Amino acid sequence: MQANQILKQIEFIKEIDKLKYIVRRTKLFNSDRPENDAEHSWHLAVMAIILSEHSNSPIDVLKVVKMLLIHDVVEIDAGDTFIYDLQKSHDNTEEERKAAERIFGLLPSDQANELIAIWEEFEEQKTDEAKFARAMDRLEPLLQNVSNNGGTWNEFGVDFDKVYQKKQVINYGSSPIWEYAERLLNDSVEKGILKKE
Amino acid sequence: MQANQILKQIEFIKEIDKLKYIVRRTKLFNSDRPENDAEHSWHLAVMAIILSEHSNSPIDVLKVVKMLLIHDVVEIDAGDTFIYDLQKSHDNTEEERKAAERIFGLLPSDQANELIAIWEEFEEQKTDEAKFARAMDRLEPLLQNVSNNGGTWNEFGVDFDKVYQKKQVINYGSSPIWEYAERLLNDSVEKGILKKE
Ligand SMILES: [Ca+2]
Repeated sequence: MQANQILKQIEFIKEIDKLKYIVRRTKLFNSDRPENDAEHSWHLAVMAIILSEHSNSPIDVLKVVKMLLIHDVVEIDAGDTFIYDLQKSHDNTEEERKAAERIFGLLPSDQANELIAIWEEFEEQKTDEAKFARAMDRLEPLLQNVSNNGGTWNEFGVDFDKVYQKKQVINYGSSPIWEYAERLLNDSVEKGILKKE
Repeated sequence: MQANQILKQIEFIKEIDKLKYIVRRTKLFNSDRPENDAEHSWHLAVMAIILSEHSNSPIDVLKVVKMLLIHDVVEIDAGDTFIYDLQKSHDNTEEERKAAERIFGLLPSDQANELIAIWEEFEEQKTDEAKFARAMDRLEPLLQNVSNNGGTWNEFGVDFDKVYQKKQVINYGSSPIWEYAERLLNDSVEKGILKKE
């Protein structure tokens, strides 16, 4: 029984290795090397641990960390969605839902259900944990783009208003982190690395 | 005060991006692409969450996850230590200690102290959390080498006895996972991908 449980868990552990090949648009800090989803997920999880004291509401940090570690696993089947892509601008598509069922479904059913529920919670953005996790997911590429002279903002011609609109969800997770982020956005306009009409 | 706290935390978050450039000897599953420390740390953290029920003793999963997410951060300054390297076969050198102080020292002092203590706890291998975390750190490259026809075992001419000796620490963290791992090692000898004299 326990041995059989382990076999299923190991199948999942092997499958998610593929996340290391899913490449994002955003580049590493001060770099032109694109980040992959495994590196991204690691960085967000550490950020959540370090920054959790700034959450607007008390949060279950382990749950936030679980969310962030697995939030992009569906991209193994569905591919990365670029946040400023107009064709396919939101996640949680039917394709992603099927991916969640297939990949988390490799696990014993109680764990599969738990992780699908956590993934859905992240996507729905209603709980305090999901809001704080999303704030981390918005903050990392902001820091990366600032370090890369505008990075994907310039590469894909995205202006201040569009970026501001996407980034302000940080405020739902943490007002002090949003204050910091808002200042970074304004500084970026002043430095000329983010266009404002 | 809170704004100043955030500035220090962001400096740490930027600095640890460098972990994405520290390359390990072990390759990704079914691949000849070497794994980097950020990907490795992400994978171990997910493994700990998935496999925690098999720990020999009750563990604080969040602590194990913190340990695994930051256990290699010192390699930003000290470089990766290959487990079968005879020249420099153990971690926790003076160089690594200095690295821990420099890198975690970027954080506000209470957090710096907490993470240095967690890193030391992992290195000392005395607590249940440290033993389970180490089991994860030994299991991942075992799975990778099996998927890669022996991988670093063959590349560096390491035989069964040497591998068995390093891997059996898995047993201190989890007997059922060690049973699984021991079977994998014996199967590897039978398949001819691990040499036994
Ligand atoms: Ca994504």
